[in-house]
Amino acid sequence: MRTRAAVALEAGKPLEVMEVNLEGPKAGEVMVEIKATGICHTDEFTLSGADPEGLFPSILGHEGAGVVVEVGPGVTSVKPGDHVIPLYTPECRQCASCLSGKTNLCTAIRATQGQGLMPDGTSRFSMLDGTPIFHYMGCSTFSNYTVLPEIAVAKVREDAPFDKICYIGCGVTTGIGAVINTAKVEIGAKAVVFGLGGIGLNVLQGLRLAGADMIIGVDLNDDKKPMAEHFGMTHFINPKNCENVVQEIVNLTKTPFDQIGGADYSFDCTGNVKVMRDALECTHRGWGQSIIIGVAPAGAEISTRPFQLVTGRVWKGTAFGGARGRTDVPQIVDWYMDGKIEIDPMITHTLSLDDINKGFDLMHAGESIRSVVLY
Amino acid sequence: MRTRAAVALEAGKPLEVMEVNLEGPKAGEVMVEIKATGICHTDEFTLSGADPEGLFPSILGHEGAGVVVEVGPGVTSVKPGDHVIPLYTPECRQCASCLSGKTNLCTAIRATQGQGLMPDGTSRFSMLDGTPIFHYMGCSTFSNYTVLPEIAVAKVREDAPFDKICYIGCGVTTGIGAVINTAKVEIGAKAVVFGLGGIGLNVLQGLRLAGADMIIGVDLNDDKKPMAEHFGMTHFINPKNCENVVQEIVNLTKTPFDQIGGADYSFDCTGNVKVMRDALECTHRGWGQSIIIGVAPAGAEISTRPFQLVTGRVWKGTAFGGARGRTDVPQIVDWYMDGKIEIDPMITHTLSLDDINKGFDLMHAGESIRSVVLY
Ligand SMILES: [Zn+2]
Ligand SMILES: [Zn+2]
Ligand SMILES: [Zn+2]
Ligand SMILES: [Zn+2]
Repeated sequence: MRTRAAVALEAGKPLEVMEVNLEGPKAGEVMVEIKATGICHTDEFTLSGADPEGLFPSILGHEGAGVVVEVGPGVTSVKPGDHVIPLYTPECRQCASCLSGKTNLCTAIRATQGQGLMPDGTSRFSMLDGTPIFHYMGCSTFSNYTVLPEIAVAKVREDAPFDKICYIGCGVTTGIGAVINTAKVEIGAKAVVFGLGGIGLNVLQGLRLAGADMIIGVDLNDDKKPMAEHFGMTHFINPKNCENVVQEIVNLTKTPFDQIGGADYSFDCTGNVKVMRDALECTHRGWGQSIIIGVAPAGAEISTRPFQLVTGRVWKGTAFGGARGRTDVPQIVDWYMDGKIEIDPMITHTLSLDDINKGFDLMHAGESIRSVVLY
Repeated sequence: MRTRAAVALEAGKPLEVMEVNLEGPKAGEVMVEIKATGICHTDEFTLSGADPEGLFPSILGHEGAGVVVEVGPGVTSVKPGDHVIPLYTPECRQCASCLSGKTNLCTAIRATQGQGLMPDGTSRFSMLDGTPIFHYMGCSTFSNYTVLPEIAVAKVREDAPFDKICYIGCGVTTGIGAVINTAKVEIGAKAVVFGLGGIGLNVLQGLRLAGADMIIGVDLNDDKKPMAEHFGMTHFINPKNCENVVQEIVNLTKTPFDQIGGADYSFDCTGNVKVMRDALECTHRGWGQSIIIGVAPAGAEISTRPFQLVTGRVWKGTAFGGARGRTDVPQIVDWYMDGKIEIDPMITHTLSLDDINKGFDLMHAGESIRSVVLY
């Protein structure tokens, strides 16, 4: 069949909206009609050419929501008509990683996904002249119709609005999951969030959900404050206004009983390796945990004195918030529908597929939190 | 009173054995007759002048065992005649750190201990001419008699031999505790130990105690192999004999079911920041934990790509093996007396106080695992 898609023809160029060929689902695959998709910094990272593993031509997009329209042989967990969210971190429930119970980083289809292909080593997409087009993160939600492995879709309730829950396919789950699954923040904790963009806002609401007492936000832009407060921030620090942000956080978290100070948990949502160091070093001696969420530039390295770890701090990271997609994503959709978490204020712009490049412009200009394309 | 002690008069000089003055215990303090003390790399680190916080003149030594001979006002938890192990990490059970239940790094007397003083800000030791001598790590076990805060002694059973259990005051607890308290290694785990000196051997036996399946030792010296095997090592890697120690460990830990590979846990006992990086990077994607035990040179920094953490590895450290001294040390003494752990083969040399500098020579020459001074 044919479908409309925004194709990344080469690095550094705008996407081109066009008709492409899409083969039907093979064994273990499903075809999904994408109803809405977010535009994410990760798409931009690849489109810009900065991603050393970027492939072209490809169909980007990984924050989608839609409806199953066809299933290949052997597919049992979803059927046509089911509402689903595509998963760039699949959940096969059978590999050594899934069965470890210790990680969400399923490795069942990692190799082919990294090559922009379906698990059988081929692509379902091609240009009208027959040139293959690569899949992206196993999702390719910048196409109206796409094909995914069955293990890479989470079935969700049918009353949830596509244009909001598409964001659960990435930023919402990443931010909230980092708090709940990776840090396992407990009630009463003191936490710091570095970087108050979309991920940061979702970390904030994750901390509120977890019952944190003190939720400190750090950002160079004072304009981020009102929205951050809306999502649960209790204290704001602009590093421009203080000599040493680490010392500022240590002082802010001291109590008459605890004169050491330091955050119980910190989260880096900036991707800046210097900020990652501050995020570690502002945590409490003895038990502070720092979670890296942001994606650093290729080749960048984090560093610190080992004394920081020997005196009890823990350095961690998280991918897709430690969430097992098929298991945890439907629950996060429920939380949204029940009002336990908010998404609507973060969807600042909705666009048609034809205007998808405007979504990237809004991101560059810092004007959007999240732009969503509605098909 | 007077006592014989080996005094560190200045950095880089041998210790001098002499008579010194020792004041009796003040409120909350106890006087202990040290019966045996180990000589540790940490003493050497300070004596050499490499420790930027080193103070002189001081009485070094922090791995002791002895008998309480006098208690100051208000002391209730020990009495004269009790056998004790001095604790450089005290356990007050009342500070924010102790009560957190998350760390062993009691902060009740941290400031004065770091200044080489008792909690009231003075020293109990002085030269015969009256010049004050600094305490060291709150212990100063290179003196036949010493004074310690009550919260810095662990009461232990009376049938345990001083010349062996003194090592529980440092290396034994550090190595075993890193496995049990910090990493919380589970039965069946695969683990790697970098550096097969005294601490490394204790990590090995901690791993055996924890029921690890694969216990890989890494050392540049093949001569370490027999003793390491005695303490539980199942596989040995000499980095001189392989191109890439990280890849070697990953390959060794692969199974037909798990083709990713990597250690579940790794322990750095070298203090070398490059080794610390290898120790992190050889752990398993998704859940590997690396624990830093070794003390790095002043100013040295660890580094890695944040991707290592984002894909699920955890970087931690440990001090005194995460053990709460008064609570956990008596249990480790029991384990030794019950034969659950071994210490005897690690005590390779015993010396008199007059020969204490020979103990440092043996350490430099790499001929000892542990030298113990018997008073
Ligand atoms: Zn995304
Ligand atoms: Zn899997
Ligand atoms: Zn020691
Ligand atoms: Zn304490």
